[in-house]
Amino acid sequence: MAQLTDTRAEAAAPQRSLHKGQQTRAAILDAALALASHTGLEGLSIGALAEVTGMSKSGVFAHFGSREELQISVIREYHSKFEQEVFTPALREPRGLPRLGAMFDRWVRRVTVERDSGCIYISGAVEFDDRPGPVRDALQGMVRAWQAALERAIAQAIEAGHLRADTDAMQMLFEMHGLILALHHDARFLRLPGAVERARAGFDRIVGASIGEHAAPSPTPSRARRARR
Amino acid sequence: MAQLTDTRAEAAAPQRSLHKGQQTRAAILDAALALASHTGLEGLSIGALAEVTGMSKSGVFAHFGSREELQISVIREYHSKFEQEVFTPALREPRGLPRLGAMFDRWVRRVTVERDSGCIYISGAVEFDDRPGPVRDALQGMVRAWQAALERAIAQAIEAGHLRADTDAMQMLFEMHGLILALHHDARFLRLPGAVERARAGFDRIVGASIGEHAAPSPTPSRARRARR
Repeated sequence: MAQLTDTRAEAAAPQRSLHKGQQTRAAILDAALALASHTGLEGLSIGALAEVTGMSKSGVFAHFGSREELQISVIREYHSKFEQEVFTPALREPRGLPRLGAMFDRWVRRVTVERDSGCIYISGAVEFDDRPGPVRDALQGMVRAWQAALERAIAQAIEAGHLRADTDAMQMLFEMHGLILALHHDARFLRLPGAVERARAGFDRIVGASIGEHAAPSPTPSRARRARR
Repeated sequence: MAQLTDTRAEAAAPQRSLHKGQQTRAAILDAALALASHTGLEGLSIGALAEVTGMSKSGVFAHFGSREELQISVIREYHSKFEQEVFTPALREPRGLPRLGAMFDRWVRRVTVERDSGCIYISGAVEFDDRPGPVRDALQGMVRAWQAALERAIAQAIEAGHLRADTDAMQMLFEMHGLILALHHDARFLRLPGAVERARAGFDRIVGASIGEHAAPSPTPSRARRARR
């Protein structure tokens, strides 16, 4: 329940118990994630990573047998970080609107932090949308896991009466995702100010239009969050 | 008024008046646009184009002196097609909500047609968001021109009383753009059914929430369009 997928098991192991080989692998993976955030998953190569880490190509190759394996490992690592920063902390909030609001709020923050590096989910979707294969499959799996978690949170908000019973969860999810994509586009590509506020206002409007009879303590979590500051 | 920018002048010239050199250039550009739709602007190269068109590298080079010039020419060509298919026909609709609805509707269709090829605006934004230079500048200019046209259409709908006077045009534009980005993502990357209907329902909801006193003949253009069929 506390995990989107089971890919975190390895990453969650305490650092000190890692053997040297695992430490080296983790260091390469960190460098690979940073590289992919700037150049995209397609910019990843054994050669480029060897250059960045100061290792030999054969040294990198010993840990990641192919470029594809490297790309998939980076996607899993990104997913693990996304889960730790966005999904897991939101589970501390009560089910329903408070949790859904926390998920959206942390998602906005994640995209904003990434304004200078780039979200691998968003760039990867564009890079791999017409390139079938294991990399696209891995990426789709991670994106679907996150969307399924959001859909569950919306369903719980409906069950709790925070949202109206006739709320279309898939429609709400689609529109929330659109706000995040527009935020990423405007903040990162157009460098427009005010995109974060627009994404939050959009969320408040979407949720506000479906508010149920047993509304949570505050009409919309993101307004409540701002008021608490 | 009928053009987003002045880049169409050349493309709009009758085919028969083109010299042979211009015809060849146009043929290369067509191939380049098709290539960029699949591989992204970064996938464009003089070499790849020579292969696709069956020309020599020096032959392609004679028409486009650099990869950068080629990329910028492709962006202009894409913009010209976008303008012809989306913007110009929408100008036939009366100012206000009918025109805004037509712009959104044709934008949706354009993205849907492109499900199998890819929108260069969307993929280019992700490719070039952290690569400053003339290619990004050209891309930003085209995207901004389209966004400015949408903003004008929203402002006209407010002036006509189709939308409430307190409508936040930039917020509405942000949310409309989000719907298009989510449509592109879900239809193209996740291959989910129903994304077109969700984008249209989202537009109806956004516009419906800001409907003014002097509403256009139908509450929301996209519903009206469906009803007319």
